[in-house]
Amino acid sequence: MADTPIRSVTISAIAAEAGVSAPTVSRVLNGRGDVAPATRERIESLLRARGYRRRGSRTGERVGLLDLVFNDLDSPWAVEIIRGVENAAHAAGGGIALSAIHRQASSTRQWLENVRSRASDGAILVTTDLHSTLRAELEELHLPVVVIDPVGVPDLAVPTIGCTNWAGGLSATRHLIGLGHRRIAFVEGRPELWCSRARLDGYRAGLETAGLDVDSALVVPGDFDYESGFRAGEQLFDLAEPPTAVFAASDQMALGVYEALRRRGLRVPDDVSVVGFDDLPQARWSSPPLTTVRQPLAEMGRLAVRTVHRLVQSETIESPRVELATELVVRDSTMVPPAAAGG
Amino acid sequence: MADTPIRSVTISAIAAEAGVSAPTVSRVLNGRGDVAPATRERIESLLRARGYRRRGSRTGERVGLLDLVFNDLDSPWAVEIIRGVENAAHAAGGGIALSAIHRQASSTRQWLENVRSRASDGAILVTTDLHSTLRAELEELHLPVVVIDPVGVPDLAVPTIGCTNWAGGLSATRHLIGLGHRRIAFVEGRPELWCSRARLDGYRAGLETAGLDVDSALVVPGDFDYESGFRAGEQLFDLAEPPTAVFAASDQMALGVYEALRRRGLRVPDDVSVVGFDDLPQARWSSPPLTTVRQPLAEMGRLAVRTVHRLVQSETIESPRVELATELVVRDSTMVPPAAAGG
Repeated sequence: MADTPIRSVTISAIAAEAGVSAPTVSRVLNGRGDVAPATRERIESLLRARGYRRRGSRTGERVGLLDLVFNDLDSPWAVEIIRGVENAAHAAGGGIALSAIHRQASSTRQWLENVRSRASDGAILVTTDLHSTLRAELEELHLPVVVIDPVGVPDLAVPTIGCTNWAGGLSATRHLIGLGHRRIAFVEGRPELWCSRARLDGYRAGLETAGLDVDSALVVPGDFDYESGFRAGEQLFDLAEPPTAVFAASDQMALGVYEALRRRGLRVPDDVSVVGFDDLPQARWSSPPLTTVRQPLAEMGRLAVRTVHRLVQSETIESPRVELATELVVRDSTMVPPAAAGG
Repeated sequence: MADTPIRSVTISAIAAEAGVSAPTVSRVLNGRGDVAPATRERIESLLRARGYRRRGSRTGERVGLLDLVFNDLDSPWAVEIIRGVENAAHAAGGGIALSAIHRQASSTRQWLENVRSRASDGAILVTTDLHSTLRAELEELHLPVVVIDPVGVPDLAVPTIGCTNWAGGLSATRHLIGLGHRRIAFVEGRPELWCSRARLDGYRAGLETAGLDVDSALVVPGDFDYESGFRAGEQLFDLAEPPTAVFAASDQMALGVYEALRRRGLRVPDDVSVVGFDDLPQARWSSPPLTTVRQPLAEMGRLAVRTVHRLVQSETIESPRVELATELVVRDSTMVPPAAAGG
């Protein structure tokens, strides 16, 4: 190996020399296919000639650590992704370094320092706001990055992984309509996340294609957590004309709705049907077991690992955004609405 | 720094030179206080003179990675410990490498290989059977180790961390007796874990000190998982004289009992009181919210990190076994038994 200091060659220097913009060089480094072949060729040969090396490809001889970064580790949702990432990293002979950055600049800085010192092959960021400063720092580190469920509209300069949130929202809503429900409420997820918006739009599409109006009183805010689901349940069943079914954008909020119903003496599913989103283990363990939209979280984690490994190998990624399929899992929390059952 | 290869000095060589057994050298390395001061002094000066260095103290200048190892990542219980460990490691400026070894020799071997290559400061093993082969390998790596909730009777040669399982079992049982329950069932945890046995004995002590007999028909096997709790619930409520209260050795099993009761049309707590153990987030999110014995899982994780760091610094650990306090958290799943309520 040459003795050239690893970080002496910057993306901007390569861009200037190639006569392209820095984002174009990034696109090549991120395995994007949307760069003209001749340009791509010119950039790649400059990267080689100037000794640009990704952090992860420094050692070359073996698969090492991947960094997995969450904002917080306080959701059971996190462990499902961790499981998939750990599994795939170990299958490839490597390991994972796990961090929580708590949406704090100081923690993010510390994490960047640690990544610098431990020579990760790449990083998987979960529900992260990949703002320009952070992206510049990661580019500075020459660290291949994949984002799972990004905040905001996915920026196509970095590969992102999600699931078919819109289709999931649609399938849950159609399931309830198929059972005979007409007043179907929706409890929203964290508004800054792309996936929340897609689930809401799937719900709307389900109602509208069935010729039903979207009643704005039945769309209530939430933040994915249990407490917000409980509050949403309280709000919905204080309505003069409450819903007969509630579709919550997360399993945890669905369980909050369960409790709001229990406190009012209403039974699931006899009085009210409830559907969640995620299919966390506790969806199966709730009483009654929850009908929900399954997100393949562990598989999303495994795909993130495979994608980072391909970036490390400088392979081309076919699509900067991959969505894995969701699937409706029908359990015991949904049935025909009371009036229909009685009639 | 000297050029002496790090692993050239073995524990047995030091032991031979000091005229003591290898376990005595290990005791000094593991921060144990039960070595005569003069012997300890002799061993420590030999360790210094021969250039014995722990893996983690090689670089000296900074806190690096700690390895955190689970058998499986399939329980929401794991994420609570992960949270504490991650938190304390980051507070100290370091990070964690997370692995699951699935009770398989091949995964254990791969993990040991990875630890060797990534220069961890130390390892925290969770519910691990620290058999002699594994311990020999870890000693070979000169890697400080702490075990959380060990399999089998804690071996005092390695620091272990747990919670006051016996006292927790006692407090749950006393709570139910105090409400007026006399037929109180117990659903056991995985029998090979030390903590399971301690919870069972706490339950027995609670009954016996209240002058109640332990009815063996009311003590049913489980393995901590939801399904085993469900099966236990089925078994208990098939009895000619079923219990009026069930104390399950984990929250997940308590939720399995909930579902067995719901399927029989029995309500919690009106018909049957249920108590869990752990206080996972889903205990609060269950319907009704579960009365349970809180284990300070995140704090156990944080303590494990501090203990490993002290071993890295070659400090003396006051006690090879530390148990943090459990606490009964009374929520809505327990009340006076039906007969007492009716009378």
